[in-house]
Amino acid sequence: MDTSEFRKRGKEMVDYVADYMEGIERRQVYPDVEPGYLRPLIPAAAPQEPETFEDIINDVEKIIMPGIASPACTELEMVMMDWLGKMLELPEAFLAGEAGEGGGVIQGSASEATLVALLAARTKVTRWLQAASPELSPAAIMEKLVAYSSDQAHSSVERAGLIGGVKLKTIPSDDKFAMRASALQEALDSDKAAGLIPFFVVATLGTTSCCSFDNLLEIGPICNKENMWLHIDAAYAGSAFICPEFRHLLNGVEFADSFNFNPHKWLLVNFDCSAMWVKNRTELTGAFKLDPLYLKHSHQDSGLITDYRHWQIPLGRRFRSLKMWFVFRMYGVKGLQAYIRKHVQLSHEFEALVRQDPCFEICAEVTLGLVCFRLKGSNKLNEALLERINSAKKIHLVPCHLRDKLVLRFAICSRTVESAHVQHAWKHIKELAAELMRAEKV
Amino acid sequence: MDTSEFRKRGKEMVDYVADYMEGIERRQVYPDVEPGYLRPLIPAAAPQEPETFEDIINDVEKIIMPGIASPACTELEMVMMDWLGKMLELPEAFLAGEAGEGGGVIQGSASEATLVALLAARTKVTRWLQAASPELSPAAIMEKLVAYSSDQAHSSVERAGLIGGVKLKTIPSDDKFAMRASALQEALDSDKAAGLIPFFVVATLGTTSCCSFDNLLEIGPICNKENMWLHIDAAYAGSAFICPEFRHLLNGVEFADSFNFNPHKWLLVNFDCSAMWVKNRTELTGAFKLDPLYLKHSHQDSGLITDYRHWQIPLGRRFRSLKMWFVFRMYGVKGLQAYIRKHVQLSHEFEALVRQDPCFEICAEVTLGLVCFRLKGSNKLNEALLERINSAKKIHLVPCHLRDKLVLRFAICSRTVESAHVQHAWKHIKELAAELMRAEKV
Repeated sequence: MDTSEFRKRGKEMVDYVADYMEGIERRQVYPDVEPGYLRPLIPAAAPQEPETFEDIINDVEKIIMPGIASPACTELEMVMMDWLGKMLELPEAFLAGEAGEGGGVIQGSASEATLVALLAARTKVTRWLQAASPELSPAAIMEKLVAYSSDQAHSSVERAGLIGGVKLKTIPSDDKFAMRASALQEALDSDKAAGLIPFFVVATLGTTSCCSFDNLLEIGPICNKENMWLHIDAAYAGSAFICPEFRHLLNGVEFADSFNFNPHKWLLVNFDCSAMWVKNRTELTGAFKLDPLYLKHSHQDSGLITDYRHWQIPLGRRFRSLKMWFVFRMYGVKGLQAYIRKHVQLSHEFEALVRQDPCFEICAEVTLGLVCFRLKGSNKLNEALLERINSAKKIHLVPCHLRDKLVLRFAICSRTVESAHVQHAWKHIKELAAELMRAEKV
Repeated sequence: MDTSEFRKRGKEMVDYVADYMEGIERRQVYPDVEPGYLRPLIPAAAPQEPETFEDIINDVEKIIMPGIASPACTELEMVMMDWLGKMLELPEAFLAGEAGEGGGVIQGSASEATLVALLAARTKVTRWLQAASPELSPAAIMEKLVAYSSDQAHSSVERAGLIGGVKLKTIPSDDKFAMRASALQEALDSDKAAGLIPFFVVATLGTTSCCSFDNLLEIGPICNKENMWLHIDAAYAGSAFICPEFRHLLNGVEFADSFNFNPHKWLLVNFDCSAMWVKNRTELTGAFKLDPLYLKHSHQDSGLITDYRHWQIPLGRRFRSLKMWFVFRMYGVKGLQAYIRKHVQLSHEFEALVRQDPCFEICAEVTLGLVCFRLKGSNKLNEALLERINSAKKIHLVPCHLRDKLVLRFAICSRTVESAHVQHAWKHIKELAAELMRAEKV
């Protein structure tokens, strides 16, 4: 949607809201719909081709408004999470469908998804151990629980361990910054020998520092064999898996218990929208379920209704699936794929520019929209370059450390980015680097 | 703002957004402002009288846009939380000001605020006990920790205990459904005698079931004496404390470590917006602080900057303080007070109608906008009445149990509610009750 259509549609939406407010007294306070009303009214998968704004807004009145407020909010979320899961070719077990045991939920952030998964895993292993040894207290079990992630995992994983009150150990990644079976198995063996209880592994697909990928096909079978919950954090990279040529990066997801990525990062859905799926939703809700009378409703014991409040930390929820519905339909799957491909192509364009310049080096494999690069030379030199780049305020780069090297990160992430921007940025970086090197030589 | 002004202003906002998008390449990628730039540009307190929409939107361009994105988002939140704290006459210790040790943060929900407070208290007591007895493991300490709330507290308190891995005990409330010193002290004495470690108390101001108030002036000194973290959950009632005539309900807040209420419930700020203050912000951030390089910034060691990511569960944040800024200025403090007063007056109007009818009884003191009532008679009779009311779909009531009685809850909560709605609702309830009683007699 360009800005001139945005002006038109935005103003129509303002009138829609005002009309709703003016007519609100003529509406019922409680909907007539029955549980499951919405799924049959909506296609089973996202459209391949874009639809028009009119089509969608007409469906709001026809499909959403009869189920305002809570049923529509919950049911659209279930269906949108199935749509998105199908776009990623997630295994059937992660989808809710009509009678599945899995399903998806929108969390606010990948941090919350990791925490929720860790808490569910903690509850599961605690109940399992207590069933075998009723004399064990939860605290005695918690003291021995260990979670694992790669040394490249996001800081939110360590934070989830802190909040959940369990040990979190980091596994040294290999020379491609990936967690591998051998290093994980070594840690497990040593921890089990010490009497600890490994229970939870976070594998990262697309790490924050350099967009590396843990080896799911190696790690997954170990987790299954050792009865550990496997959570996959693909916060950034997940969006790319809607393209067949990138889907192989998700191979091994079939071994996981939960999977998460952020459509708000790279799938054109506004912040916040973090998509999480689980294979067995009762394992998730089992960790949190409490039912006071003021939250009871007539359908809750029927099994027909999904109570998302048991899937998450907060109680209240916003109607975030509407954003997904609009975006998926306005772009179509093909439009979203084209968007991802353009970003990846632009990052390779930048990579090629860097590789052509003998003063610079590429520091990690470029797979998606992130290019890790640096001036050949000291960290101090690269710090000085970063300082010049960010002080000029034409582009903004966030650095990282890869082993002992300070690395600059060029991330393609704007909706409106074009080749010209990449070319300008590279020219600007080269100029600042040349200035720096002249200054250093003086 | 009526709907005709909403149409006008909403469309202006659509153009504002479109203009921004069209001109985005002419803007800097990083702001020029220095930490603390915003506070001097804004009054120290909310206006008493309403301001115009033009005034506010002009300030967006003048005050917010130069600090887009993150500095403006953080700094406006700090100032808005101070504004709101002053409206409530919170003790100075809870405000950030220019050099305070306390401060406010917007959480997504009261559930998260309770959890964050509990985790901070858990970290504080664990560090304190480990300093005294370094041989104690965190797990050995956690096993003995006990948190307390009234038996009327919201289910999210129990949930916070589950997530935090600590015991949560409920204190029997008195005949006004309030937690009192004697019952709390009794539990503390018994738990301490059993070797447990009391560390955290949640006091509720305005319980969900019947809007009762725990006795802060009794409980607060006990918490201070026993070195327990006192968290106040005033999710619903907190908004009323902006009116001098209701502020006494908050007396005793000076004993608390943290205080929370939801402006999204009753202060005209759209969902979600849950306001939380702490007296000592390092106790909060101490529970979560992790600083990977990709999240570092040049000001973080200066102490000049508030990093809200250490105050909460998620990492990312939305710009929610803008909602507060618009609402506080569009209504002015007087407008917000008038709104609260109108709702309280309407609930008393409903209470009077109920009291005039000998078939009905009032079941708890009416203090704010909630009226707990029932037909004199069995729970079964009241369940049948509730079923008739909710099936008719003209109004919607959510019940609760007060001791062994099923009680209907009439809650005044719409922005547009008038006396006529209350009168209609009562007439409707009376008609359905009469029908029911005729049917029962047959």
